[in-house]
Amino acid sequence: MFYSKDDDKLREECGVFGIFAPGEAVALNTYWGLYALQHRGQESAGIAVTDGCQMDVQRGMGLVNEVFRQGLPSMAAHIAIGHVRYSTTGSSLLCNTQPLMVSYAGGRISLAHNGNLTNASELRGELEKQGGVFQTSIDSEVIVSLIARSTKPTVEERITESLARVKGAYCLVIMTEEKLIGVRDPHGFRPLCVGKLNDGWVIASESCALDTVGAEFYRDVRPGEMVVIDKDTITFSQFVQGDRQALCIFEYIYFARPDSIIDGQSVYEARLQMGRELARESGIRGDIVISVPDSGTTAAIGFSYESGIPFAEGLMKNRYVGRTFIQPEQKKRDTSVRMKLNSVTSVVEGKSVIMVDDSIVRGTTSGKIVRMLKEAGAKAVHMCVSSPPIGYPCYFGIDTSMRKDLIASSKAIDEIRQFIGADSLHYLSIEGLERSVPNLSPKHMCYACFNCDYPSSVPQTSESGDKYMFEAKSKCESCGGC
Amino acid sequence: MFYSKDDDKLREECGVFGIFAPGEAVALNTYWGLYALQHRGQESAGIAVTDGCQMDVQRGMGLVNEVFRQGLPSMAAHIAIGHVRYSTTGSSLLCNTQPLMVSYAGGRISLAHNGNLTNASELRGELEKQGGVFQTSIDSEVIVSLIARSTKPTVEERITESLARVKGAYCLVIMTEEKLIGVRDPHGFRPLCVGKLNDGWVIASESCALDTVGAEFYRDVRPGEMVVIDKDTITFSQFVQGDRQALCIFEYIYFARPDSIIDGQSVYEARLQMGRELARESGIRGDIVISVPDSGTTAAIGFSYESGIPFAEGLMKNRYVGRTFIQPEQKKRDTSVRMKLNSVTSVVEGKSVIMVDDSIVRGTTSGKIVRMLKEAGAKAVHMCVSSPPIGYPCYFGIDTSMRKDLIASSKAIDEIRQFIGADSLHYLSIEGLERSVPNLSPKHMCYACFNCDYPSSVPQTSESGDKYMFEAKSKCESCGGC
Amino acid sequence: MFYSKDDDKLREECGVFGIFAPGEAVALNTYWGLYALQHRGQESAGIAVTDGCQMDVQRGMGLVNEVFRQGLPSMAAHIAIGHVRYSTTGSSLLCNTQPLMVSYAGGRISLAHNGNLTNASELRGELEKQGGVFQTSIDSEVIVSLIARSTKPTVEERITESLARVKGAYCLVIMTEEKLIGVRDPHGFRPLCVGKLNDGWVIASESCALDTVGAEFYRDVRPGEMVVIDKDTITFSQFVQGDRQALCIFEYIYFARPDSIIDGQSVYEARLQMGRELARESGIRGDIVISVPDSGTTAAIGFSYESGIPFAEGLMKNRYVGRTFIQPEQKKRDTSVRMKLNSVTSVVEGKSVIMVDDSIVRGTTSGKIVRMLKEAGAKAVHMCVSSPPIGYPCYFGIDTSMRKDLIASSKAIDEIRQFIGADSLHYLSIEGLERSVPNLSPKHMCYACFNCDYPSSVPQTSESGDKYMFEAKSKCESCGGC
Amino acid sequence: MFYSKDDDKLREECGVFGIFAPGEAVALNTYWGLYALQHRGQESAGIAVTDGCQMDVQRGMGLVNEVFRQGLPSMAAHIAIGHVRYSTTGSSLLCNTQPLMVSYAGGRISLAHNGNLTNASELRGELEKQGGVFQTSIDSEVIVSLIARSTKPTVEERITESLARVKGAYCLVIMTEEKLIGVRDPHGFRPLCVGKLNDGWVIASESCALDTVGAEFYRDVRPGEMVVIDKDTITFSQFVQGDRQALCIFEYIYFARPDSIIDGQSVYEARLQMGRELARESGIRGDIVISVPDSGTTAAIGFSYESGIPFAEGLMKNRYVGRTFIQPEQKKRDTSVRMKLNSVTSVVEGKSVIMVDDSIVRGTTSGKIVRMLKEAGAKAVHMCVSSPPIGYPCYFGIDTSMRKDLIASSKAIDEIRQFIGADSLHYLSIEGLERSVPNLSPKHMCYACFNCDYPSSVPQTSESGDKYMFEAKSKCESCGGC
Repeated sequence: MFYSKDDDKLREECGVFGIFAPGEAVALNTYWGLYALQHRGQESAGIAVTDGCQMDVQRGMGLVNEVFRQGLPSMAAHIAIGHVRYSTTGSSLLCNTQPLMVSYAGGRISLAHNGNLTNASELRGELEKQGGVFQTSIDSEVIVSLIARSTKPTVEERITESLARVKGAYCLVIMTEEKLIGVRDPHGFRPLCVGKLNDGWVIASESCALDTVGAEFYRDVRPGEMVVIDKDTITFSQFVQGDRQALCIFEYIYFARPDSIIDGQSVYEARLQMGRELARESGIRGDIVISVPDSGTTAAIGFSYESGIPFAEGLMKNRYVGRTFIQPEQKKRDTSVRMKLNSVTSVVEGKSVIMVDDSIVRGTTSGKIVRMLKEAGAKAVHMCVSSPPIGYPCYFGIDTSMRKDLIASSKAIDEIRQFIGADSLHYLSIEGLERSVPNLSPKHMCYACFNCDYPSSVPQTSESGDKYMFEAKSKCESCGGC
Repeated sequence: MFYSKDDDKLREECGVFGIFAPGEAVALNTYWGLYALQHRGQESAGIAVTDGCQMDVQRGMGLVNEVFRQGLPSMAAHIAIGHVRYSTTGSSLLCNTQPLMVSYAGGRISLAHNGNLTNASELRGELEKQGGVFQTSIDSEVIVSLIARSTKPTVEERITESLARVKGAYCLVIMTEEKLIGVRDPHGFRPLCVGKLNDGWVIASESCALDTVGAEFYRDVRPGEMVVIDKDTITFSQFVQGDRQALCIFEYIYFARPDSIIDGQSVYEARLQMGRELARESGIRGDIVISVPDSGTTAAIGFSYESGIPFAEGLMKNRYVGRTFIQPEQKKRDTSVRMKLNSVTSVVEGKSVIMVDDSIVRGTTSGKIVRMLKEAGAKAVHMCVSSPPIGYPCYFGIDTSMRKDLIASSKAIDEIRQFIGADSLHYLSIEGLERSVPNLSPKHMCYACFNCDYPSSVPQTSESGDKYMFEAKSKCESCGGC
Repeated sequence: MFYSKDDDKLREECGVFGIFAPGEAVALNTYWGLYALQHRGQESAGIAVTDGCQMDVQRGMGLVNEVFRQGLPSMAAHIAIGHVRYSTTGSSLLCNTQPLMVSYAGGRISLAHNGNLTNASELRGELEKQGGVFQTSIDSEVIVSLIARSTKPTVEERITESLARVKGAYCLVIMTEEKLIGVRDPHGFRPLCVGKLNDGWVIASESCALDTVGAEFYRDVRPGEMVVIDKDTITFSQFVQGDRQALCIFEYIYFARPDSIIDGQSVYEARLQMGRELARESGIRGDIVISVPDSGTTAAIGFSYESGIPFAEGLMKNRYVGRTFIQPEQKKRDTSVRMKLNSVTSVVEGKSVIMVDDSIVRGTTSGKIVRMLKEAGAKAVHMCVSSPPIGYPCYFGIDTSMRKDLIASSKAIDEIRQFIGADSLHYLSIEGLERSVPNLSPKHMCYACFNCDYPSSVPQTSESGDKYMFEAKSKCESCGGC
Repeated sequence: MFYSKDDDKLREECGVFGIFAPGEAVALNTYWGLYALQHRGQESAGIAVTDGCQMDVQRGMGLVNEVFRQGLPSMAAHIAIGHVRYSTTGSSLLCNTQPLMVSYAGGRISLAHNGNLTNASELRGELEKQGGVFQTSIDSEVIVSLIARSTKPTVEERITESLARVKGAYCLVIMTEEKLIGVRDPHGFRPLCVGKLNDGWVIASESCALDTVGAEFYRDVRPGEMVVIDKDTITFSQFVQGDRQALCIFEYIYFARPDSIIDGQSVYEARLQMGRELARESGIRGDIVISVPDSGTTAAIGFSYESGIPFAEGLMKNRYVGRTFIQPEQKKRDTSVRMKLNSVTSVVEGKSVIMVDDSIVRGTTSGKIVRMLKEAGAKAVHMCVSSPPIGYPCYFGIDTSMRKDLIASSKAIDEIRQFIGADSLHYLSIEGLERSVPNLSPKHMCYACFNCDYPSSVPQTSESGDKYMFEAKSKCESCGGC
């Protein structure tokens, strides 16, 4: 779980893609699929392919177009899977790129994982006791090890047996020499969907990747479901009974691309509605509604729709933001915001500005943006956040990290308002958020970072943050017994 | 002059930046300045620095953050200039990066150039007859050669004498060991402005670069004006009488960043007004107004303001578009559009969609986008273009290239509509465009690509397009005698 | 096991290095140590370090100076191990670089391996049946897996238990957070020695690496011996009784650097003596003795000593031979020899030339060199080889590959002479070779590639060469029942 | 002029190659040609090609195989020229790579230069006064500028006129769209020869490059001669009367490859003879003769021939020496020698060793080697140098640099012996050296670094070493009036 201090945003950890399509350029399609999922991870990328006999993988650090600048795996393959991963720090990073590719008693297998296991350390320790070795620090290696240890005859059964041991969030795309398999955990924390590409099939974290490769949306993989594609058939089966569906609400708030449809709910429409609800709840009035681009824009438009206050572009984003030179100079942080965003003076000067953003994590960036708008002449800045205060950490694949970093875990709303220097501050209520996603029952989603209602037991983090201990959810330490 | 077939957009060729600021990290500031100007050129970047004694330059192919990934020029400098350049094709590209750095009788000089000389070949031929040698294929080398040949005692006089010979568009940032000099051609084709950074000075193509480095806007460099900055003073002087001011209207339509203010006119406000005028002129009605992001967005918002039709995000852009793998596969073009843009079905389905874009060059991309919207269920697509039809090539630093590539030079509006498959097609009129830029008189701008009224003589392009011949403007071959 | 078709030479697979030296720059010393062992492997290089708490590894494709051009692992470590590996072909090469670094029940461990296991496939299959997964195609991963599965309390016991299962050739350098361990297989196929560096200790494949880092030779690691170094002590122990010592004779003939001393025998003196024996046995006379540089030079000097015929440099080698551009042009092979070697006309013209080389594998390069000398005017070329004909493949870490590639396995000596176009051809006899290594009994060496007397059971290679089956040595298929 | 402190060797600055061969792969041949000349320069490499219409150049930092790892210029060319350059330090190095390629009144021209002009600053100042601009710091740019300024009708006449102004050492390979031209300065300081490759022609610094590409030696280009090759003919003409032939004696001593033949003299035979003469003159006796590899080897063999003392390899050189990691550690220098060379204990232990090297510059490396031999047990080390003491700087393309760096300019021979710690020290006499090159009269060679008899006026170096003043040779400051 990682957290981007750079732009004060939560981070999704990964995106996955898979394709089974004899006759198609599967590696190239995976490339474009990952490209469409790039927002889910920018640290590293990888593509594994098989022609039914050989299996090959190419992985590297950087964006998809950087990793594959020299070319794609050249094998004339008919199955491929791919992975993008969010940036972490530390050594040996190359080891941690995915897809993993291993050989085991059942043959060769490649695996790409989106999510975060809550009992990975536990399982890893157990596997190590049985003689297992681990060459990476990614928890997906645990799943591979479990599959390899299973004594079941088929790979589907091996996977099923293994996942019975695993807790937490996982969407997996798995490839053998003959099959492409997609799996979604019983809670359905992360999205996964299937599309049809001519005579072949595609699996992806989000439907926008289907659109990009020209595949037609077929259906979502349901929580606890496994989809197996081979040369003859596509088979969906419930490998485990779903405990309680708990799709991460942040997929709708921030992570997913607005042009994706997840579990029947358009992300765009959800964000638009969050803006509408926010306008209604806050009741705040001003001269213009602006967004913190790009993630706040759709909600800002919804706010404008509901309030009748005109939407305008008060902040411009540099379209070429990428990995930049790390300077040891002072004022780094300020430069870093100014470098990415600039105010449009003519829009905000002398105006009472309603600024919509999707969330506040630490609040540092929000403060800088408010200051920038004031310096550009804004008469007032009313900050409207299209989600509730984040008070609790996430254990299922997002980087809310330690609770102390979350400004809303220790400060009251007015204290936050003071910290960021806004004239007023309005969060969307949990109820408002729930109403914004009409196609899914709130009971089928995870709002734990807002309400501490974790859908499954969570690790109790020790002081060092390095080791996990596991307890019943009722004793959740995170919130001091909520 | 180059033209991007990839996305069917006109291309600005360059952006320039300069800084004179003892005590500041001038190379780092230039880095951030170029970063803010990255939209003006993505092929190559370079930074030259001087400490008053030594002069050094670092140049390379790629984006600013790629070229300087290994670090900036390390000299403890107090003056720096920088350049970003648009992507070209062909060999020896590295030779053509800027800033140029040469030694001549007057010492060392570095120069960065935005624009396009119309008599470069002529002058180059002349200089070669006098024994000049040229190591690059950029016309800026001609200016350097003229400066070196001048017998005037000061560098300012040398520059003045040289520029008297030069025709066309040029904004120059020049650095000697002691001085930072900015020059804007007598027509003022391209923008150039000056900002104050603490005790130092900054020169940049656009004001957004001043904002990014934290400099305060001081004033625009006027057409025919030279600004000279040394350790004691900043001096503005009219080095030549402006012939006729002719700022490129496309800076407001498309090139410049919306958060820039050029010659007293906010780019954002101009674009907003173009949208308003377009709504008024076209009179077209529909369910929603969408834009082709990002360049059409501000005009689309203006269209929405005027028409009262709600603005929505009907197309989503991949935020990670960069240099991608070049595949030799079929259907490349279609993939290439789908890879960058995706429709938001819930927004456009069953709707009569008004789609606003800034311009149409060849029309191929527009056609693909219209098709994509129809496939997503749009009932009708009305294409509204916030500029008039481009009928004539540009000779002053844009890549309208050969006239035959311009769809509007050979097709009537309804033919274009048919070509792109829209239900209706509406261009902004020249008058409407003029009204959108209220702070500048139309007489002070160049609309030649729309009306063939070139502000100065232009080269007559031969069949091959390789050699230029020069004639009086009245015989302009481009339009067959307009 | 790989074979370099490029220069028709056998290839050693690897070199290893380890250092335990608090207060020394252990990563830098490992860098220099690998540099000295570069002749043992040019495909990839890696260095793992530990500070007693963290462990880090850096690996890459290329020569040592290429892999670490950007710097060494930066940890303030006190133990380090390193590895160089010979070039292979195929995909996923980066996966196969060493040292391996894994975590297991006993903590973290890094391992570098020189040699080739003969029962790796067998063990791997067995481990896979027990649920093991393998991420590389290197047989060293099997050893790591065995160590991890051992239930013994100490790492030394775990290693001992594991190696009891392993057959074939291995010199291992292993690092835990506390210890540096060196192991040499019971046959002692590959060399391994220990040196003293101030207050610390160094382990290396060859003594030349000790010299390079300024360490003093302490003693060889004996077959079946393990050396364990921790902060207090250095302990040598016999972890298994040596079956039959079988140091690879090719270390003296070609692999090792002449300035190394292996198991008490100077490589230089051995080669010199091979030349002397060859002169005596062949009885051939000529005007000059030349060598195929560099590997034939020492034997050629010995030949000259014994025969009294002057040694001269008849062939010059390009000192900058490295990875070169792969051209698709004709005559590639010829260019490839001429590019590396050139005749010195004044030396060979009109002369009867005795040319000494260390070995002949396929004979193709030898033929080209003979032709080159004849074209330079040599009256006669007598080829003298300072080793016997190679008739049998190696299974212990050299790349003699399939038997069919070995010219001496299918052709009589005079047929080989004709093939290479020499006027006469003389191989050193096995007895002469044995006499050249006086410090080791022939019974303590492996001459199997010459006499098919394999010191342990060897894999029976199937047609495809992809799978191994194992039989008793007496049925050795390689030689059809020798 | 640069001097390698790293290995205490003089450095040649450049190697040049040219080919005119319709139907041949000229770029590839140039690649191999430069590869063969790599010993003449390792900093950068470049290849320019023309197909008679277009001209292209590709240049970069590093060895030939590094610069062209991504491929060669792809043009289907029939003429090519290439250049390798020795390593320098400082910024903007990429600017200084060759071949230069420029356009001027006469068309396009590419030029590669081996040598050093003694009046480059003077001419450059003059050209700058006439308006010339210089983009590099290489003196070859002056030649190009002179050619461009010439008003003569043909390129041959332009070159001839230009070279009349130029003083110093130059071998040039020049390419126009139609012609390949080779020029050697009137003194013939540097070698240049012509070979025949099927129906085409090759020009190269040394004959070893002809051998490598499979060309047949045709003849040397004579001092003051120009060779012009076009599609019909090859023409040799004396463009200026040779002043006094003055081939650099160091080509025979150290620079050239032993397999080259220069001006009718085999380099190998010359070196062999230097060793013989040295044995005779020194009269020193010992147990073995060893060389400092590789440059001292041929002379050591000659010494052995003459003295009857056996030649042995007492020092082994690491064959993979290349650009290594630059460490900031102590003892760098010592490591640096040990890293490259190692003693062979069995060879030198207890022996009186005669060590032959080609020259001594500063003496630092020699001292380290002597110490290494003594540590390996050598009873005595007698250093024999196959050239006289270097007392005077070179101005014609070698890097003897400032006189103060030359140990022989300030120390008597016995002082040098003490400095390097040898038991005795013997230099070859000038007369002995002269006798070693029987095919050229001493009057036709330059021995100035030994005897201060400069063949033409030389620049008088100021204190700073940055500016040159020129005086008559009789007042030569270098030697204080020799």
